[in-house]
Amino acid sequence: MDYVYGPGRNHLFVPGPVNIPEQVIRAMNRNNEDYRSPAVPALTKVLLEDVKKIFKTTSGTPFLIPTTGTGAWESALTNTLSPGDRIVSFLIGQFSLLWIDQQQRLNFNVDVVESDWGQGANLDVLASKIAADKAHTIKAICIVHNETATGVTNNLATVRKILDHYQHPALFLVDGVSSICALDFRMDEWGIDVALTGSQKALSLPTGMGIVCASPKALEATKTAKSVRVFFDWNDYLKFYKMGTYWPYTPSIQLLYGLRAALDLIFEEGLDNVIARHGRLAKATRLAVEAWGLKNCTQKEEWFSDTVTAVVIPPYIDSSEIVRRAWKRYNLSLGLGLNKVAGKVFRIGHLGNLNELQLLGCLAGVEMVLKDVGYPVKLGSGVAAASAYLSNATPLIPSRI
Amino acid sequence: MDYVYGPGRNHLFVPGPVNIPEQVIRAMNRNNEDYRSPAVPALTKVLLEDVKKIFKTTSGTPFLIPTTGTGAWESALTNTLSPGDRIVSFLIGQFSLLWIDQQQRLNFNVDVVESDWGQGANLDVLASKIAADKAHTIKAICIVHNETATGVTNNLATVRKILDHYQHPALFLVDGVSSICALDFRMDEWGIDVALTGSQKALSLPTGMGIVCASPKALEATKTAKSVRVFFDWNDYLKFYKMGTYWPYTPSIQLLYGLRAALDLIFEEGLDNVIARHGRLAKATRLAVEAWGLKNCTQKEEWFSDTVTAVVIPPYIDSSEIVRRAWKRYNLSLGLGLNKVAGKVFRIGHLGNLNELQLLGCLAGVEMVLKDVGYPVKLGSGVAAASAYLSNATPLIPSRI
Amino acid sequence: MDYVYGPGRNHLFVPGPVNIPEQVIRAMNRNNEDYRSPAVPALTKVLLEDVKKIFKTTSGTPFLIPTTGTGAWESALTNTLSPGDRIVSFLIGQFSLLWIDQQQRLNFNVDVVESDWGQGANLDVLASKIAADKAHTIKAICIVHNETATGVTNNLATVRKILDHYQHPALFLVDGVSSICALDFRMDEWGIDVALTGSQKALSLPTGMGIVCASPKALEATKTAKSVRVFFDWNDYLKFYKMGTYWPYTPSIQLLYGLRAALDLIFEEGLDNVIARHGRLAKATRLAVEAWGLKNCTQKEEWFSDTVTAVVIPPYIDSSEIVRRAWKRYNLSLGLGLNKVAGKVFRIGHLGNLNELQLLGCLAGVEMVLKDVGYPVKLGSGVAAASAYLSNATPLIPSRI
Amino acid sequence: MDYVYGPGRNHLFVPGPVNIPEQVIRAMNRNNEDYRSPAVPALTKVLLEDVKKIFKTTSGTPFLIPTTGTGAWESALTNTLSPGDRIVSFLIGQFSLLWIDQQQRLNFNVDVVESDWGQGANLDVLASKIAADKAHTIKAICIVHNETATGVTNNLATVRKILDHYQHPALFLVDGVSSICALDFRMDEWGIDVALTGSQKALSLPTGMGIVCASPKALEATKTAKSVRVFFDWNDYLKFYKMGTYWPYTPSIQLLYGLRAALDLIFEEGLDNVIARHGRLAKATRLAVEAWGLKNCTQKEEWFSDTVTAVVIPPYIDSSEIVRRAWKRYNLSLGLGLNKVAGKVFRIGHLGNLNELQLLGCLAGVEMVLKDVGYPVKLGSGVAAASAYLSNATPLIPSRI
Repeated sequence: MDYVYGPGRNHLFVPGPVNIPEQVIRAMNRNNEDYRSPAVPALTKVLLEDVKKIFKTTSGTPFLIPTTGTGAWESALTNTLSPGDRIVSFLIGQFSLLWIDQQQRLNFNVDVVESDWGQGANLDVLASKIAADKAHTIKAICIVHNETATGVTNNLATVRKILDHYQHPALFLVDGVSSICALDFRMDEWGIDVALTGSQKALSLPTGMGIVCASPKALEATKTAKSVRVFFDWNDYLKFYKMGTYWPYTPSIQLLYGLRAALDLIFEEGLDNVIARHGRLAKATRLAVEAWGLKNCTQKEEWFSDTVTAVVIPPYIDSSEIVRRAWKRYNLSLGLGLNKVAGKVFRIGHLGNLNELQLLGCLAGVEMVLKDVGYPVKLGSGVAAASAYLSNATPLIPSRI
Repeated sequence: MDYVYGPGRNHLFVPGPVNIPEQVIRAMNRNNEDYRSPAVPALTKVLLEDVKKIFKTTSGTPFLIPTTGTGAWESALTNTLSPGDRIVSFLIGQFSLLWIDQQQRLNFNVDVVESDWGQGANLDVLASKIAADKAHTIKAICIVHNETATGVTNNLATVRKILDHYQHPALFLVDGVSSICALDFRMDEWGIDVALTGSQKALSLPTGMGIVCASPKALEATKTAKSVRVFFDWNDYLKFYKMGTYWPYTPSIQLLYGLRAALDLIFEEGLDNVIARHGRLAKATRLAVEAWGLKNCTQKEEWFSDTVTAVVIPPYIDSSEIVRRAWKRYNLSLGLGLNKVAGKVFRIGHLGNLNELQLLGCLAGVEMVLKDVGYPVKLGSGVAAASAYLSNATPLIPSRI
Repeated sequence: MDYVYGPGRNHLFVPGPVNIPEQVIRAMNRNNEDYRSPAVPALTKVLLEDVKKIFKTTSGTPFLIPTTGTGAWESALTNTLSPGDRIVSFLIGQFSLLWIDQQQRLNFNVDVVESDWGQGANLDVLASKIAADKAHTIKAICIVHNETATGVTNNLATVRKILDHYQHPALFLVDGVSSICALDFRMDEWGIDVALTGSQKALSLPTGMGIVCASPKALEATKTAKSVRVFFDWNDYLKFYKMGTYWPYTPSIQLLYGLRAALDLIFEEGLDNVIARHGRLAKATRLAVEAWGLKNCTQKEEWFSDTVTAVVIPPYIDSSEIVRRAWKRYNLSLGLGLNKVAGKVFRIGHLGNLNELQLLGCLAGVEMVLKDVGYPVKLGSGVAAASAYLSNATPLIPSRI
Repeated sequence: MDYVYGPGRNHLFVPGPVNIPEQVIRAMNRNNEDYRSPAVPALTKVLLEDVKKIFKTTSGTPFLIPTTGTGAWESALTNTLSPGDRIVSFLIGQFSLLWIDQQQRLNFNVDVVESDWGQGANLDVLASKIAADKAHTIKAICIVHNETATGVTNNLATVRKILDHYQHPALFLVDGVSSICALDFRMDEWGIDVALTGSQKALSLPTGMGIVCASPKALEATKTAKSVRVFFDWNDYLKFYKMGTYWPYTPSIQLLYGLRAALDLIFEEGLDNVIARHGRLAKATRLAVEAWGLKNCTQKEEWFSDTVTAVVIPPYIDSSEIVRRAWKRYNLSLGLGLNKVAGKVFRIGHLGNLNELQLLGCLAGVEMVLKDVGYPVKLGSGVAAASAYLSNATPLIPSRI
């Protein structure tokens, strides 16, 4: 079953799915259980309470849906909106594109605000649209917090400020797939109505759980939302929450115990420390890219992503060859350039349960691969730049002091 | 994390999720992988080919969807039908009820054929409806092969005969959640258009994969089906099948390797031997029930289910107490009676990777619990009846001869 | 790698190695660690403290040796005795025989007190020998607490009484391999000088750790013991205990974490409850054997073992055929008759992390196998007898009340 | 149970225990089994045949002993020699010292040939002793192939040449603990009589299995060897080999399946490729050390070890502080300096299932730690030197071409 064996560990640096910590793999190493026994509701109850912390919400209601990020998107949209509803949505890369595609196929009236790939959402355009929308025809703003294809992080606080400024009631729906548990994310403070992520991203679990959190306003919206939904219907969940049995259909026992372990690790490290660690590893990566003489696909510093760096390579090199080569020679998994930036960028995912030396190993590998494909890199230069920074910035591991 | 520790193994006899074989648990004990590397498509390709065998189809197209049985239902309906389409559906227990509820919420025009809980689908009524439907207003027949709530197995061959007899073009959609890989199931021979199951049932995996198989006719139907769908859209899968990358969104690497191991075990035992084993364990269970002087919820032998037995208990006993007691005293997980039969039946699931002595341990446990709740059972009687049969019927384990 | 696949779980009823609880399997599912980091001594320190509880000692010093029971024996003997030393040892079955063989090969002067296989140690003979030994030429009494080959438990309290009565200073060395953590065992109260067990017995771990506990008197004896020893030398351990690094050579990290989990489970259940559970399962087994009309190899009730029952079968049946058949047809692993009782007895191990329904499944299997080999058993009779008892004796699981 | 949690993977670069590949962890993730069933002998038989390949022997007889390297040493000595026998043994570091200590405590007459720590065995002295020993009073040459404390590899071929040249019949006993499966090792070609390793070294398993291989001449020697031995007695094994049951006492089922998986990985990669990979990673490490301006503890290139590099640091730095700091800040486990070189060297283990980027991550970590402790290192310099070499020397992964 190992079609492609290579010695040593796979260096997994795609921006998801990410490395699962051993503690989580262990927690999931178990037989099935009857989810109708008293044990599973007891576990679920605490999980629902604890998972709110990663959204920084106290008023939100979380749903742990057996699906992927794509399903979580669908859940966010269909539970709060009706066909024909006007949405403002930002196209800035492949994942925002896919979400917009879904929005259109779900028959919403999508007002697409497009930016160059590598730029963040154009919030000036948003401000104009909101300003102009006295009639409140805009029902929701849909925004990807972190565009995984280009390594661009949008400013959610500004979105909220715009809405507040114009006292606009639009729902604020956020794809936090590659941000929650890794970037600064404040659901309550930023007045986010639906936030969502997937288990295989910064939570560092296997794929299979869409984690969605709805504000009271979003829950209220379900009452009038006419979008057809059954599997993704929050009200089915809420019915079972009320009964204390929690599950409208069978959950994955393994993912529940895995989530328990994943949250325990995050809380042990401290969520803010986890976020700081992501910031540290991301900055180290950017310093390496600079040292190699390469450009970040992200066009301005304000949009730099702390979970993924998309690296632009010179036109005479095909970035897919970098990804292929990394995997074939060094057991290093990098992210491909997607769609518009296919062949032009490769991506380094630096999210999830990861530390400094794992990243430096990756950077050392990227350097060698760059050399392989004919880019005139100075071997060691990226690692030197990254470790110059990390050797100052990295704290001692608290439990080991 | 073990809120409810009891010594020894949990005896898991709910009709799903079922026991996962150690081989499968092992296969899933792994880190995430980049699903865009060449390894995952190579694995997927073979899985898609092999999974067809458990449906007994060569012409079908399978989809491995990160969802549950409920999602698989939704996938079957929305990909082949349009809102307002007339469906004939059979209400014979809780799970057919839930599917009908979904059909109605998805805005189909559901022609419900109801039977007493404990009876199979009324195929005479189907025949009349089909005979009367010269205009072919009926677009689909939806039927649960095995109603898990009552232990009733419907006769799918007869459904096909009726449709053929009247040359009716309705799609034939089958919920095989608690049947496929356990009961005799012949997708091609019976002209089934969509068949589906969930990973946590007879395949003996964790929950999280809906396995759906579509006939060429069902695929053709997607072209005109106007139901809104995105996450569940087969065409997104087909697009990626064509590209050879297979996944429109992130799959669970662990479930893919788990499915590989599960199929390997089924093929090693032989699918027909697996089905025969289910027949053997089911018959033993029914003999025990008879020996206890209790009645099978299933009203006629032709409907007896080989994956779950719903046992009717006298009115002076609350069947929930049996389930609670079994769990509290003997670490035995039995199925509750649901909805109409709540409190009246308890259920013994005997599906998945299970053998004779596991079942006999369960039956011995049920006897003691029956005594506990005041039913005048003769201890040992059920085990005696079951083992009298099993001691003749059980073959030697082929690999050990 | 599964040469002999059979569906469902293996029913492991040999008297060791026994079933490993899922919690322990999980705890051991891990990478290696540097045993010289501060983490491993911290873990070891607590383990050494906690492991004393299963011996019921506060004054003893435990050693966790990477070896088997055979090595633990050697450790007990060579650390406390000198070649030529006179030992009184009891031959009552295969394992006492093997220990005596070891004692002789280690050049001790072994005074063997033999009993029929099926009888306990002849303590009257011990009393005479001790009475006669005014000169204290006897340096040690070596006794197997529970002879696994015949299911005979010896009375250790009486041994102590005899020694005390004659104020005899002989060391009291006890093989507790199939007793500790399962039978009533009181190292301090009974004045035992060395007690030992193996990880794969009632502790329910994999094989590989010999757990030895030495009284202060035994430690004192190491100073004069001239037996050659290096790998097994306790003083090497003590040197590292003093330094706080604990390990004279590399321990198995996995077994350390496994032991931690195993002890946690035992303490959660309560050691005395664990022992009571062993008593309950053993009595149920003996009642089944009686119901089958078969005889216990153990000749008197006072010697009945609560961890293993050796069942005598009529001379016209070869007991090996029972063991073979159980494995080939029902995936049931029973113990063979060994040496003198080969072909005459088969053994049911009922020790470790095991519950009522697992045992009843085993007994149902034994019945069917007895029928297979031509013994006129009434199917269900053993299960009936066992469950009549168990349905009264089994308490509710505390954590589930 | 995780006393010392740190985010991301532990970087395990002690020279054993080493990283266990996920495939091996998976294979060991299992319940116990009856080792007397036909399955375990079938597995063992093939293992014994296959394990000979890692010794490069066809005539040797392997023993898989539940013990550590220390026990494997004892097994090698006591099975072939008698107390008082004259042995020539080489003291070149901590592990040869410990083996010599064992030899002395086992009452052999040890002729110690001492070298400076950092030098190899003085084979000129061996030649003189052999030349002088016309009476063949020397019964055995004991040599550590690779001294793990100093990173010194001895030349075994020369030892054989010396013995052959003088037609000396001394047994040739080799500690291959940190060499076998990693360095060029040729038991048959070099006429080695006993070779041994431990599971936790280059085989990349957990600790707990001593793997010993005896030449026909060594087996012959057991007949006259008077050393007391029971647990370690090869003849007990041979008796069970003959019976086809293989085990004189209980083996670890988990380690057997783990060994199967470990050998499968080694054979898939190709033993010679495994050895080449060790050479490559070792050379890269040495180039990094050189770039840092530090000295290898190994004094001459001919002794350079391809499994561990001991790095000498300036006297103003305590090497223990490097090891502590690496663990506390970067989750990096390095080897301490031991005994004579305590505080003076730290060690990088580069053996077992390991690849280029893992090593480069380690080297990047060492650089930062060197800076932390006040050594004027140029960050990135070691990685640059190592990757300059590796980017040329590393082949594509065969299964991925």
